Amino acid sequence: MRDVAIVGVGSTQFGRAQWSLLKMMCEASHEAIQDASLGDRKIDAVFVANMGSARNNRMAGLASALVDRMNLYPAAAETIENGPASGASAFKMGFLGVASGFYDVVLVCGGERMREVNNLEATEFVSFLSHRYAEYVYGVTLPGLAALFARMYMERYGVTNEHLAMVAIKNHANGLLNRKAHIRDSITMEGILTGPDAINNNPWVSEPLRFYDCCPVSDGSSALILAPANLAKELCRKPVRVAGIGQGTDTHAVHERPDPTELTAVRIASQKAFHMAGLTPQDIGVAELHDAFTILEIAESEEAGFFPKGEGHKALERGETQINGRLPINPSGGLKARGHPVGNTGVSQLVELSLQLRGDAGKYQVPSRPKHGFTVNFGGFGNNVIATVLSEGV
Amino acid sequence: MRDVAIVGVGSTQFGRAQWSLLKMMCEASHEAIQDASLGDRKIDAVFVANMGSARNNRMAGLASALVDRMNLYPAAAETIENGPASGASAFKMGFLGVASGFYDVVLVCGGERMREVNNLEATEFVSFLSHRYAEYVYGVTLPGLAALFARMYMERYGVTNEHLAMVAIKNHANGLLNRKAHIRDSITMEGILTGPDAINNNPWVSEPLRFYDCCPVSDGSSALILAPANLAKELCRKPVRVAGIGQGTDTHAVHERPDPTELTAVRIASQKAFHMAGLTPQDIGVAELHDAFTILEIAESEEAGFFPKGEGHKALERGETQINGRLPINPSGGLKARGHPVGNTGVSQLVELSLQLRGDAGKYQVPSRPKHGFTVNFGGFGNNVIATVLSEGV
Repeated sequence: MRDVAIVGVGSTQFGRAQWSLLKMMCEASHEAIQDASLGDRKIDAVFVANMGSARNNRMAGLASALVDRMNLYPAAAETIENGPASGASAFKMGFLGVASGFYDVVLVCGGERMREVNNLEATEFVSFLSHRYAEYVYGVTLPGLAALFARMYMERYGVTNEHLAMVAIKNHANGLLNRKAHIRDSITMEGILTGPDAINNNPWVSEPLRFYDCCPVSDGSSALILAPANLAKELCRKPVRVAGIGQGTDTHAVHERPDPTELTAVRIASQKAFHMAGLTPQDIGVAELHDAFTILEIAESEEAGFFPKGEGHKALERGETQINGRLPINPSGGLKARGHPVGNTGVSQLVELSLQLRGDAGKYQVPSRPKHGFTVNFGGFGNNVIATVLSEGV
Repeated sequence: MRDVAIVGVGSTQFGRAQWSLLKMMCEASHEAIQDASLGDRKIDAVFVANMGSARNNRMAGLASALVDRMNLYPAAAETIENGPASGASAFKMGFLGVASGFYDVVLVCGGERMREVNNLEATEFVSFLSHRYAEYVYGVTLPGLAALFARMYMERYGVTNEHLAMVAIKNHANGLLNRKAHIRDSITMEGILTGPDAINNNPWVSEPLRFYDCCPVSDGSSALILAPANLAKELCRKPVRVAGIGQGTDTHAVHERPDPTELTAVRIASQKAFHMAGLTPQDIGVAELHDAFTILEIAESEEAGFFPKGEGHKALERGETQINGRLPINPSGGLKARGHPVGNTGVSQLVELSLQLRGDAGKYQVPSRPKHGFTVNFGGFGNNVIATVLSEGV
């Protein structure tokens, strides 16, 4: 296998799209192509991450449509769906294309326009990820599953609603520094949990989760360019190496897991990614985790190996995961504040990590200038997870 | 890149599904796994081809669901969508996974349950593949595009409705020999075109295309197992080598093509596949082409290089593409009679070709026992096409 590097990145503004899904994807892709200074070099293949275009946007064959709109013929084009982990899946496919030697220059673009349908339809759509006969038919939604998970986790490990709120407050503070974030809104413990008006500001969604424990429904697109490492220095002043990719799957129905508080697929994916990279969690200086719900950031930080099981919330309390802490988590604002255009999120995480490793993250740059970064992209309710390790330089 | 082989194949009955989409996919996958005699060897990754589960079956993350139902954790799982070429796309992804050395044993499974919605909804769904602003909003359907294409082709090259009917008659005759085919129904020129009752038997769908010029709306699933060539002989008595894969894209809106009768993406994909395989069209002894509409079989047979442009219909007339002809095309019945579960079709084509190269196609075995076979899987209306060359043995 050849070594593979990220040689260019781009992203749209997140939030409510001004434009069509395809136009957003063009914007992110153009930014990534310009960032990579490809010159006359052709893109050999396009890998698109998207979850819902056929359901929400009346479009199929999205990758072929992007090739057309960007005038990239006869580049190969593929669309990959892996629920909320579609982004990391498309990235993995692009990686395999380059690593195998089948392609040289690859565009990976995630795009999702959730807000073309209303919030109720969007929530129902995401629940298509649950087990059809064991969960979906009984009305399960992803916030519902997350609430059941959070309740067990809180009782077993002493996690409180304050801890959950700390995740939201940290990620909102980070999002304030990211001009592309969907939510740029400073929140306080008093305002969302302990103050007299907290219940109005922050109502229950699915107990014990409140409004600020859940990510928003976002539109957005991110893109990146992959190339073999030996070509990367030609195309980019600051290439970022794809050091490790790991993936794990788990039971579809959450109640079938021997211990539903264990995110086995996160653990397996992380171990595989670290093994491939030849690194350990101690080597990582920045992480983008999949905080679709605040509890997930805490649980993933443990399963990935950064903190012992049941102690992630204590590290959070000590401020270790803040932007100037020992292991900054979600300096971009995470799904919570940057936003969560479902199929796109994994690509955004890798774009954000690349910016951090290049030192290009601007106001939300992690001050320690880390050499290695880590992401978890969480599919379904943890039944298909991809972890990635990126390293500075080639 | 490592050499890759197909070491097991399986398929359901095509037609109207008795069971859920997932259960069909399990049936095909089990058949492929048994065919491969994997023993205790684990499947490392699952690549699923599907176009419409979120729209038609209220399911997303289909590959993860298949891993769960088949108890294949923690195998990696990905779902690939490339319209009617999803099958060949998922196959290509599986190939890249094995060729790169990232995976050893890979399951590729296509599945589509179109008939969970009615025919009108199914036709509208497939039209999501057309250009949203240049075609879709004006009410274009795929049969409509095929009819415009057919009219130009017929006028330019002297193709008649009799020629189109010959494709249907040949493929129906082949389908009669394939017990898994959706349509097993013998038709004659008199019955569908020249006889007094032809217009009732074979009404217009979109002039010049009639009922028997269009493939049916089918449910079905096919699966195959990929492994590196050096492992293939352990796993399978009759491995089939993946000799070449080529892909090409073209303009999304059909009217933007300088000459809309040219299927440029078919030509590019075929040339690339032959180049990778080190073979020419003259080496091919059997082909499965994408006859979603009868005119496409004729046009693809020319663009792939089997016949000069505008002369495919003459070869058809001479019987060269019959099962005992010089180049049998669609001995399985093709999309026309075997059926067209959209996202699955590319996998079915490769399964059928493997059976032919192994000599296992039973009643529809091509008598010459060809050494090399060829497929075209046609995405959108020819804007994303994958061609594959398979060879007997490793």
